[in-house]
Amino acid sequence: MTIELITIGSELLSGHTLNTNAHFIGGELARVGLVLSRQVSIPDDHETIIATVREALARADWVIVSGGLGPTNDDITKKALARVFDRPLVFHDEILTELKERFARAGRAATPLLDTQALQPRGAEFIPNPVGTAVGIILTQGPKTLVAVPGVPREMQPMIIDHIVPRIAAQTNVTTVSLTWSTTGWPESRLFETLEELIKETPAVTVAFLPSERGVKLRFSATGPDARTTLENWVQTVRPRIMEALYAEDDVALEVVVGKLLRERHLTIAVAESCTGGLIAKRLTDVPRASAYVLAALVTYSNQAKIDLLGVDPQIIERHGAVSEPVARAMAEGAIARTGADCAISVTGIAGPGGGTLDKPVGLVWIGVSQKTGGTTARQFQFMGDREMIRERAAQAALNMLRVRLLTP
Amino acid sequence: MTIELITIGSELLSGHTLNTNAHFIGGELARVGLVLSRQVSIPDDHETIIATVREALARADWVIVSGGLGPTNDDITKKALARVFDRPLVFHDEILTELKERFARAGRAATPLLDTQALQPRGAEFIPNPVGTAVGIILTQGPKTLVAVPGVPREMQPMIIDHIVPRIAAQTNVTTVSLTWSTTGWPESRLFETLEELIKETPAVTVAFLPSERGVKLRFSATGPDARTTLENWVQTVRPRIMEALYAEDDVALEVVVGKLLRERHLTIAVAESCTGGLIAKRLTDVPRASAYVLAALVTYSNQAKIDLLGVDPQIIERHGAVSEPVARAMAEGAIARTGADCAISVTGIAGPGGGTLDKPVGLVWIGVSQKTGGTTARQFQFMGDREMIRERAAQAALNMLRVRLLTP
Repeated sequence: MTIELITIGSELLSGHTLNTNAHFIGGELARVGLVLSRQVSIPDDHETIIATVREALARADWVIVSGGLGPTNDDITKKALARVFDRPLVFHDEILTELKERFARAGRAATPLLDTQALQPRGAEFIPNPVGTAVGIILTQGPKTLVAVPGVPREMQPMIIDHIVPRIAAQTNVTTVSLTWSTTGWPESRLFETLEELIKETPAVTVAFLPSERGVKLRFSATGPDARTTLENWVQTVRPRIMEALYAEDDVALEVVVGKLLRERHLTIAVAESCTGGLIAKRLTDVPRASAYVLAALVTYSNQAKIDLLGVDPQIIERHGAVSEPVARAMAEGAIARTGADCAISVTGIAGPGGGTLDKPVGLVWIGVSQKTGGTTARQFQFMGDREMIRERAAQAALNMLRVRLLTP
Repeated sequence: MTIELITIGSELLSGHTLNTNAHFIGGELARVGLVLSRQVSIPDDHETIIATVREALARADWVIVSGGLGPTNDDITKKALARVFDRPLVFHDEILTELKERFARAGRAATPLLDTQALQPRGAEFIPNPVGTAVGIILTQGPKTLVAVPGVPREMQPMIIDHIVPRIAAQTNVTTVSLTWSTTGWPESRLFETLEELIKETPAVTVAFLPSERGVKLRFSATGPDARTTLENWVQTVRPRIMEALYAEDDVALEVVVGKLLRERHLTIAVAESCTGGLIAKRLTDVPRASAYVLAALVTYSNQAKIDLLGVDPQIIERHGAVSEPVARAMAEGAIARTGADCAISVTGIAGPGGGTLDKPVGLVWIGVSQKTGGTTARQFQFMGDREMIRERAAQAALNMLRVRLLTP
């Protein structure tokens, strides 16, 4: 089973747009044990699309095309596919009806653009697009199948997950079982050294290390009839060795895990942020229904705001500086006092690029965790990287400190 | 002049690694008016590399290959190139000498790996690698040139900037001038309809629409000896038509523009957020030295927090609901009262997925802007999309409302 991907868009070739679609589609196929054999980016050009699609169809069983659907690029993909498959564009009434109904429900006026979206190759099958106006297109030619999806990630992603990957997977007998675990706090090299011997001894399991600012995801895969048992035995061996860094036996964000812990324990939280500037609050409230446990966040960027909004004693700031253990403690305790939350996290640090000194360099961050019953702890971190990396790492470390605290009896 | 890029690495096809190299190389070429005509990602496979390089050389004047150099992937690219160009791998003493000297200076012991790095196709030209051990390779065949660079970004990037782009540019007389403008508040379709006639009338200018949740970027390009004049005339015509949506004649984030306005006017700001949960504060403080104008943000997720931290009258919440004009106004005014900031923005809305009613559906957001001198305005928005999109759009609309307010005399 060979699968090729064609991503269409001049912006992918000119350095304007990072090709996250290729990354996403490759990853979704890999989840079910399928491998993309080639990916090509080409400009929005009629003849180039025709030639490239023909070449891909000659080699591959499945060809996925993304981009070039929709009115602003003159529906260039649709027209090229009509040529390759020799199917004229005809008007599809059912597409127009669906679009008009959706626009009416949203209180929007139908525009002539909707008519062009209903013009599609004869005999094609369509994938609905609940977010935008361009439907996905499926065309077959003997044993070959071509799928065209929009280039807008939010429109493309559900089509890939819900329609295309299951359909390709149904045509194969590959039984690959994969698991993704989420870790934080350990660098990739430490995880690798911890697991290196095990990996060598267990060729039946493939291990991928997927690092980011927020930690390292580990993907374990096994193929074959015994894949599930192989993987079950594997995780039993691995789990105790990386327990300290492992925050979920799943591919999940830390704020989701923290939110679940707070919800289960019927605890409310407040956040006091300085250098992270709202990032922790933003992440906590990325989770639907976070209002069940997030009461408030106080982003006290200036010293005066720390004093006025969190009740931090100005003498402490003067004596120890805003980036210090006593201020981190006072911020966390102040957040509880001002909001009545059951627990709080606080962050104060130097994200850079300016503001560092010899004593307190860029990347120095103090994080506090406080519980109404249980007192306050604070810890110092020295993060590497630019402003964005330091902020990301500080937010992640703060959420993880809370997680560990909540799990400590 | 056609230039193709081949990025080698199975990790690019399996969703493990985002292809930032293609993005970087495309962008560096575009800076000097050169356009990548095709980019393909292929796995670390000898025969596939040979076939793909041959196809690319048949089409293009220049072929850039990245990845597959170096010992961890068995130098697969070097071996394939030796086959394609029919040049045996021979030992290059000057490469080994240079590597050994560098290792000696760094106090590192030479390893047998260095010998394999000195084994290169006969008659090739080399690009030094001051960071790693794999040199860049240049091979020519008649009028065609192939360049191979390592896949590690920090080794590849200096080779592209210092050696390859200048060399390709020296072979052309192309003068392409490009400009990127940033807009927000208008959907892509409205921008397109506004400019449609103009675009048709001006074939000398190419226009690309680059939409995201935060707005639409417009890229204008013109080629040829008169490119600069063509583009200058074009922007004069376009500017007044899209003035309302245009926030920068540059490719820049809205928080940078807002930050610049605040800084120039010596104004401080506070933010009062509900449904955006800290996203606006996070974006404002993404900008280095935002501490010059950001005093604080109050993320009042619960009603009680709106009352306690912002002084919103509980009777207003009871009478109008938390998502209402009076609450948006009271939040913005409360943020100024509690922090002493010169201006404030407030957001209260329903980001979903739950919490919507017939009267107040998911996506309903009230945004307030207040100035210490100049009073308070509030506006209602109805955003489409999922939780993340609604939050992104609300944050963008709030920053833009402040921008417009600051520009209004």
